[in-house]
Amino acid sequence: APAAAGDLEAGRKKVRTTCQVCHGLNGLGTNPTVPNLAGESETYIVKQLKAFRSGARTHEQMSIIAKGLSDDDIANAAAYFSAIKVTATPPK
Amino acid sequence: APAAAGDLEAGRKKVRTTCQVCHGLNGLGTNPTVPNLAGESETYIVKQLKAFRSGARTHEQMSIIAKGLSDDDIANAAAYFSAIKVTATPPK
Repeated sequence: APAAAGDLEAGRKKVRTTCQVCHGLNGLGTNPTVPNLAGESETYIVKQLKAFRSGARTHEQMSIIAKGLSDDDIANAAAYFSAIKVTATPPK
Repeated sequence: APAAAGDLEAGRKKVRTTCQVCHGLNGLGTNPTVPNLAGESETYIVKQLKAFRSGARTHEQMSIIAKGLSDDDIANAAAYFSAIKVTATPPK
């Protein structure tokens, strides 16, 4: 079943407290080891967070952080990051 | 050691033949299951591609594609995607 649509404002709050320090409030990674999440699809974000939570995917920080996320937290954060408008301009 | 810097033009060519169909030449995923790679750091892209190649991370398509990538292919594709200029505007 497609990921249940999350709540944007609840997601913004969750991102502020839990994700922002590495992923940025604008969804651009704050250091080279961190991926950008700006404009990422809800489907992809939900899948990766659930993989970190279940252990299907592992990462030093994300495996720990994901353990503390409820399905709603995941859907809400995904709603927020996917709502970030992105433009992408390839190098000339 | 930091990822050896790849060659942008060789990377553009590699992305055209191997990555573009899902990840787009502008680095924006062409369907919801595919992550955006636009402006992603070389460090992160190299790490993920090597993880798919070694099996540390698995994915139906990426595990197969990554097996065919040399270290240069990986560095070059990473150089290309990271050179894409990105702007990110959070929702009001």
